[in-house]
Amino acid sequence: MGPGDPELLTLKAARIIRAAPVVACFSKRGRIGHARRIAGDLPAPGAETLSLEYPYTTEIPVDDPRYLPGIARFYEECAETLAARLSAGLDVALLCEGDPFLYGSAMYLFDRLRERFPAEVVPGVSGMSGCWSRALLPMTHGDDVLAVLPGTLDRDALAERLRGCDAAVIMKVGRNLPKIRAALADAGLAGRAVYVERGTMAGERVVPLDELPDAPAPYFALVLVPGRQRPR
Amino acid sequence: MGPGDPELLTLKAARIIRAAPVVACFSKRGRIGHARRIAGDLPAPGAETLSLEYPYTTEIPVDDPRYLPGIARFYEECAETLAARLSAGLDVALLCEGDPFLYGSAMYLFDRLRERFPAEVVPGVSGMSGCWSRALLPMTHGDDVLAVLPGTLDRDALAERLRGCDAAVIMKVGRNLPKIRAALADAGLAGRAVYVERGTMAGERVVPLDELPDAPAPYFALVLVPGRQRPR
Repeated sequence: MGPGDPELLTLKAARIIRAAPVVACFSKRGRIGHARRIAGDLPAPGAETLSLEYPYTTEIPVDDPRYLPGIARFYEECAETLAARLSAGLDVALLCEGDPFLYGSAMYLFDRLRERFPAEVVPGVSGMSGCWSRALLPMTHGDDVLAVLPGTLDRDALAERLRGCDAAVIMKVGRNLPKIRAALADAGLAGRAVYVERGTMAGERVVPLDELPDAPAPYFALVLVPGRQRPR
Repeated sequence: MGPGDPELLTLKAARIIRAAPVVACFSKRGRIGHARRIAGDLPAPGAETLSLEYPYTTEIPVDDPRYLPGIARFYEECAETLAARLSAGLDVALLCEGDPFLYGSAMYLFDRLRERFPAEVVPGVSGMSGCWSRALLPMTHGDDVLAVLPGTLDRDALAERLRGCDAAVIMKVGRNLPKIRAALADAGLAGRAVYVERGTMAGERVVPLDELPDAPAPYFALVLVPGRQRPR
C-alpha cells in the first residue's frame, strides 16, 4: 500500500484490490487498519472485508512471556481465516503498509500459507522512500553503504553500525529517541540526521534532529541520515 | 519508475507523466532510456522528450582521471537543458528507475536545480523491492538490521559489513560476482544468498547463489540475503 499517500499505490496494487472478492487487513482492535484506510474506495462494493485484529499491540510488552505465543496463535488464526476463503476459490488481497517484505506483518501469513496456495507479492513504495522523498534528502550516491536499523538496538550497537555505513535509516523511533540521538552523536552523525513523522500523510513533519525536542515519537516516525554528497 | 514492470509505477507518477509538457530521461548514447521505455505511451502525444545521453557509461573506467570531470560537465549541461524549459514555465518530469533518491542519477540534477526551481520527488518502488518480491523472499522481520552494499567494496569490507547485519542486498554485481561470493562465504552466508536478474522484467532470473555459475552479471542484477526467520 506504500507509505501512506493513497496516490503512492502502484497501478498493479490498485488493479488487484479492485478485482479482489476478499480484502484483508491487519488492524488494532476496534480500529480500521491503516492499510485499509489507504485503499479508500478501491475495493469492489460487494467485496468482503476481513479485519485481522491484533489481540494486543503495545498492551503487552514484547519481552513478556505471553507476547510471542499469543501473537503466534493470532497469526495461525488469521492464516486459517484466509485459507477458508482461498479453499473456496476466492482470491484474497492482503493489504500491507509500505513494502510487504520489508518489516511487514503480512510475511507471517505468507510463511504460513505459501506451501498451500499460490501467492503473488506486489512490491510497494517503502515507508522510508516516502519519508526521504518528502524530506528532499537524496540518500545514497555511487558506492554508499545504506544501513536500515531498528531503534531498539542498544546505544553501542547502534553507534557501531552507524560508523560502518554512509547513509542510515533508523526505524522504530518511539521511546528510543534519546538513545538514538546519543548513538548518532557517538558516531559523529548527529548534525546530519533528519526526523520525519507521518511522511506523505496528513500531519507530516520534517525536522532536523538537533532541533527536535525529546518526546516519545509516534509509530510512523523515522530518523534519516543521508549519505555524504560527493561532487559530481 | 519502479523496478521495471510498467504496472509497478505509482498512480501519482502515472498522473504526472501524463500531464507533463516535457519528459526527460537519462540514456546510453543512441538508446532509448530504460525509464522512458517503462513509461510506454503514458506521455501526452504533444509532450517533448529530452534524452539525456551519457557521454560514456562503461567505456571510460570510474577511476580514470577523465571520468569525473566529464560526468560533472554532462550533469551541468543536463541541468541547463532542464532549466531552459523550467524558466519558460514548462514543468519537466524527470524519469528515474527504481526510487529516485536511492542510487539514482536524477539526484545530481536535483542537487543542481533545487535552489532555482520548485521540485517534487515522487518515491518509487525500488529495484530491490521488485527483486525480493519476485524471489518470494521475506527480507526483514522484527528487529532485523538490513544492509544495502555495493558489490564494488573489497572482499574484507563486504564480509565485515555482512557479519554486522541480519539481511543484506548487494548491488552492482556485474564483474564483482566471484568476490561477492567469497565475501558471503567469509561471513557464513553463502547458503542463504539468492541471485536475481531483471526482477519484474522480461528475462527475469531467480537462482540460489550457490547454483549460479561464475560469469559477469548484467547491470540489473542483485544478490539478496534474507534475514533469519524467527518463529512467530
